[in-house]
Amino acid sequence: MTAQLKVGKRILHLRNDLGLSQEKLALKADIDRTYLTGVENGKRNISIKNIEKICKALEISLKDFFNDNLFDLN
Amino acid sequence: MTAQLKVGKRILHLRNDLGLSQEKLALKADIDRTYLTGVENGKRNISIKNIEKICKALEISLKDFFNDNLFDLN
Repeated sequence: MTAQLKVGKRILHLRNDLGLSQEKLALKADIDRTYLTGVENGKRNISIKNIEKICKALEISLKDFFNDNLFDLN
Repeated sequence: MTAQLKVGKRILHLRNDLGLSQEKLALKADIDRTYLTGVENGKRNISIKNIEKICKALEISLKDFFNDNLFDLN
């Protein structure tokens, strides 16, 4: 699984946990909704700035975001 | 501190721990050395693909890479 897809899956999981729609998360993170859709589908090679924006909107630190088995092995 | 600078500091720290020069790490990670210099100085908005390439070259998972106090707070 690509790193992009792992990040996408993690965002989707956290977003659902918070009961947020893509639209609401995109608004909160100040990113384009269609971009967020692409990120969640693993289609976007997302930058660290945008990962941080999404983490802030999900109210999670970068440390906790990547603290998941998805990111165990390279 | 920006997320870019945090990532740069972390790479520099791990690279020094392994006693690798920027040149050797860049070669191993298959990225341009001057790009790596920019990343370590926090000047590059690095993508998840390149973070993963550098992690593989540093022989560390994404999970362990971000498991540092640098990434505690957003």
